Amino acid sequence: MTKIKNNSQVLFYYSHSKKWLAKISKNESLHTHIGVIKHSDAIGKEYGSRLITNKDKYVYLLEPTTYDYIMKIQHGTQIVYPKDLGYIAARTGLQNGQKVVEIGTGSGSMTSFVASIVKPRGHVYTFDVDPSFMKIAQKNIDKAGMGKYVTMKKLDIKTAKKMPISEADLALIDLGDPWTVVPQVRKMLKGSGAVIAICPTMNQLEKLVVSLVQNEFTDIECSEQILRTIEAREGKTRHSFQGIGHTTYVCFARKAFFEKTKKQTRKKSTK
Amino acid sequence: MTKIKNNSQVLFYYSHSKKWLAKISKNESLHTHIGVIKHSDAIGKEYGSRLITNKDKYVYLLEPTTYDYIMKIQHGTQIVYPKDLGYIAARTGLQNGQKVVEIGTGSGSMTSFVASIVKPRGHVYTFDVDPSFMKIAQKNIDKAGMGKYVTMKKLDIKTAKKMPISEADLALIDLGDPWTVVPQVRKMLKGSGAVIAICPTMNQLEKLVVSLVQNEFTDIECSEQILRTIEAREGKTRHSFQGIGHTTYVCFARKAFFEKTKKQTRKKSTK
Amino acid sequence: MTKIKNNSQVLFYYSHSKKWLAKISKNESLHTHIGVIKHSDAIGKEYGSRLITNKDKYVYLLEPTTYDYIMKIQHGTQIVYPKDLGYIAARTGLQNGQKVVEIGTGSGSMTSFVASIVKPRGHVYTFDVDPSFMKIAQKNIDKAGMGKYVTMKKLDIKTAKKMPISEADLALIDLGDPWTVVPQVRKMLKGSGAVIAICPTMNQLEKLVVSLVQNEFTDIECSEQILRTIEAREGKTRHSFQGIGHTTYVCFARKAFFEKTKKQTRKKSTK
Amino acid sequence: MTKIKNNSQVLFYYSHSKKWLAKISKNESLHTHIGVIKHSDAIGKEYGSRLITNKDKYVYLLEPTTYDYIMKIQHGTQIVYPKDLGYIAARTGLQNGQKVVEIGTGSGSMTSFVASIVKPRGHVYTFDVDPSFMKIAQKNIDKAGMGKYVTMKKLDIKTAKKMPISEADLALIDLGDPWTVVPQVRKMLKGSGAVIAICPTMNQLEKLVVSLVQNEFTDIECSEQILRTIEAREGKTRHSFQGIGHTTYVCFARKAFFEKTKKQTRKKSTK
Repeated sequence: MTKIKNNSQVLFYYSHSKKWLAKISKNESLHTHIGVIKHSDAIGKEYGSRLITNKDKYVYLLEPTTYDYIMKIQHGTQIVYPKDLGYIAARTGLQNGQKVVEIGTGSGSMTSFVASIVKPRGHVYTFDVDPSFMKIAQKNIDKAGMGKYVTMKKLDIKTAKKMPISEADLALIDLGDPWTVVPQVRKMLKGSGAVIAICPTMNQLEKLVVSLVQNEFTDIECSEQILRTIEAREGKTRHSFQGIGHTTYVCFARKAFFEKTKKQTRKKSTK
Repeated sequence: MTKIKNNSQVLFYYSHSKKWLAKISKNESLHTHIGVIKHSDAIGKEYGSRLITNKDKYVYLLEPTTYDYIMKIQHGTQIVYPKDLGYIAARTGLQNGQKVVEIGTGSGSMTSFVASIVKPRGHVYTFDVDPSFMKIAQKNIDKAGMGKYVTMKKLDIKTAKKMPISEADLALIDLGDPWTVVPQVRKMLKGSGAVIAICPTMNQLEKLVVSLVQNEFTDIECSEQILRTIEAREGKTRHSFQGIGHTTYVCFARKAFFEKTKKQTRKKSTK
Repeated sequence: MTKIKNNSQVLFYYSHSKKWLAKISKNESLHTHIGVIKHSDAIGKEYGSRLITNKDKYVYLLEPTTYDYIMKIQHGTQIVYPKDLGYIAARTGLQNGQKVVEIGTGSGSMTSFVASIVKPRGHVYTFDVDPSFMKIAQKNIDKAGMGKYVTMKKLDIKTAKKMPISEADLALIDLGDPWTVVPQVRKMLKGSGAVIAICPTMNQLEKLVVSLVQNEFTDIECSEQILRTIEAREGKTRHSFQGIGHTTYVCFARKAFFEKTKKQTRKKSTK
Repeated sequence: MTKIKNNSQVLFYYSHSKKWLAKISKNESLHTHIGVIKHSDAIGKEYGSRLITNKDKYVYLLEPTTYDYIMKIQHGTQIVYPKDLGYIAARTGLQNGQKVVEIGTGSGSMTSFVASIVKPRGHVYTFDVDPSFMKIAQKNIDKAGMGKYVTMKKLDIKTAKKMPISEADLALIDLGDPWTVVPQVRKMLKGSGAVIAICPTMNQLEKLVVSLVQNEFTDIECSEQILRTIEAREGKTRHSFQGIGHTTYVCFARKAFFEKTKKQTRKKSTK
């Protein structure tokens, strides 16, 4: 049984659209539309308990998960959404102990999620070119408690002479022009290793796939994930009126080797 | 660089619909529509390499991932698909070190996936009532290399007097009548711990949500995940003609405590 | 070539979310966020021409279609959306000359759409129990120019002794409890005639289908229509960020006769 | 009450996947997996009645609709599906009396559907370049009973010097390169008239939209329609396991005039 203490992370949960992440600080209060929440009221309670605001509304004290950190990220840039992150984990068979390289740190949402799964033995190496974004990302990664499992570095992989990583299990690409880094990314992957690229447009998918084929990748799968929420209530169950729109398309592929096999060579020589 | 040896697991990959999982056995051959693949030809090659069959077709030697194991499961029962497993991982913030309980082992697909993420420090405890399914599930879990991280037991949780587990981070329910086990499942969860139920019908969702509310769960979210694949090709990019249909709806919730708060009690006593 | 005159209907179109329906009245002006539009500026212009507002924004003078009337309906109640109306037309093979009966006039959006297709030889008979809604509906139907092809009447079909219509090609049901009127609706349909019911919840679908089977309907198809808009732009084509959510499920069926056939009778008598 | 006679069109309906269109011919029989259906057994029965096959299966005698004709078309080419046709009708406000031009007759499915709505006062003029397709299309259009309302002609609109039609309400384009005919199609449309193009790929959408903007079209909307069927059964309602995949994207736009308005000219001249 985990009790909430001063400095504990808490998700104050009222509803799907009204929830707040906070680090408990005994003298602070959270002022919201549903009333004032005094941090000190949470101290000593078990996660899952509820408080009542001065406007008589119940607020649950939930233990934040990676999902909550990602959904509450301060985005200086677009985040990668949980629906897409889930697909990435499932499609690549992401698991503890893996070595992951990420080109384009963005807001750090994908970095945090992937780190939360490969930790504690695995690691994420993430590279970006924009120091201002990197600062925001570092804050987000730290807040999610993943700082230890992530190494962030300013590096333009397109012009880098030597790859900083090799034999990675998975490479993540979150750039506007993902196809430009395919040859470099390939060098960092182990044989059969996976690449995932975040492609908000169809044009990016198309250019990327051309590049992946040229660079000897196989098992290529482009897709989009659509999450539809359902309101299940006695006698009136239906999908939500509010739709969840486009976030990004995702491309998956695995590194192969197209070199000629013995048999082929033999056949050619006999001709 | 990992070379394939005798007894290595290999995914022989020709296309999305033509692929075979095998344990390399030097004297065996795989007979397929695209020709014969001799296991011995794979030995000594790096994962990602390709062979050529006696019908001149290329087959890639990929290192199987949890995804590949799940998609190739011998199902004596319905499997839980990667698109749904990905949502489960992302929504619950599943990560290394967590303790998971599963009611209804089914084919072992969800068991294997969840174990692959919580391992090596976490563990999955899975309970079923049907020994014949359990045998199939054990085989599938072992094939995916997750046997060490899973404890399977025959147990009818509905009638169990004492819960075998407590303070679990996550409870998975994959039963035809998930609402019947909610009170028991609650006892096994830590405060703020998550429950996920696999509900193929809307009626199951509806009954389950009623039960979750009665049993003091919050942050309830029912949803369905739709995966649409896209064929990205130069100048003719479009969604796949083949649609991917319904598999299951999924219900998520977190354990809360609805006991009266001090303030409430105080208010009542002043009346 | 149709020129706009005083009293012509015009859709002032600026963008998908900023457009206004108006009947041209030479002394009126429309005051909008994108500037003032003087009705008199439109007079004498061809449909499709554009005006410029006093804020230098272009506004197109489009000829309103049934689509535009429906999307701009004053809804005292929920409207049926074009995506669902399109399915209804296509699934039932709706066409000129058909006789249609509607139980539950609602806002008149479905009435107007269906009338626009069956006119001028066909007709829509629509019944409702709430005079206040009927007033709004009549206004909407008239605005869409369909008043001539619609007969509206206050009638509670559930308790009606004699059906006001017979041999209808299509019956539309838009009630909270559509299953209650199936026996009555059946009496108004011709053999093989179609019924369409608007069912916002899964529970309604379920109860309705049970009733349809009991009342000898066949070719039953329940479905939902999802419209996804795509932003096609050079080099950055993608789905819209804004999702389009749930509106309603739709149930289609055709009237059959389950009476015993000769052959059956013969067989039974020989036993 | 319509009785089936010799030469009547009948849809023999067993299930969504087992149904047959036939013209009753008193000496013919239909041999199917569910038994033999003797045409003569249908004669004299009311539409909606059922027969019993020699294998004791019920078959309903339904009156075919445009939907049934389209779904049973002999396709020498891709058909346009009802879900997409429904959107076209709803988005364009298609109705009786309209003049429609179609570039690319294809299988005649879209031609038949559109004719069924604009008839009897409206008309569809359809042009194609391939006489072999045109033969198939003509057969399909005739079978659907729409021959009277359709004029088909061999014509390459791209190179045509004079447009065969003017002041059309709607232009349909179903070609591999729809953008190439936009300037010609424009000449055939009335001001504010609609264009609909069938675009199976994202690349076609993209090129088409560029051309539509250059050729002074407005209110452009690209979209896809997704039809999901639901199996509503007591206590076990859910979406169908079988998914419905991609058919085509659809582009809608309306003809505008971008010529300078008086106000603009005035403003420029005062500068």
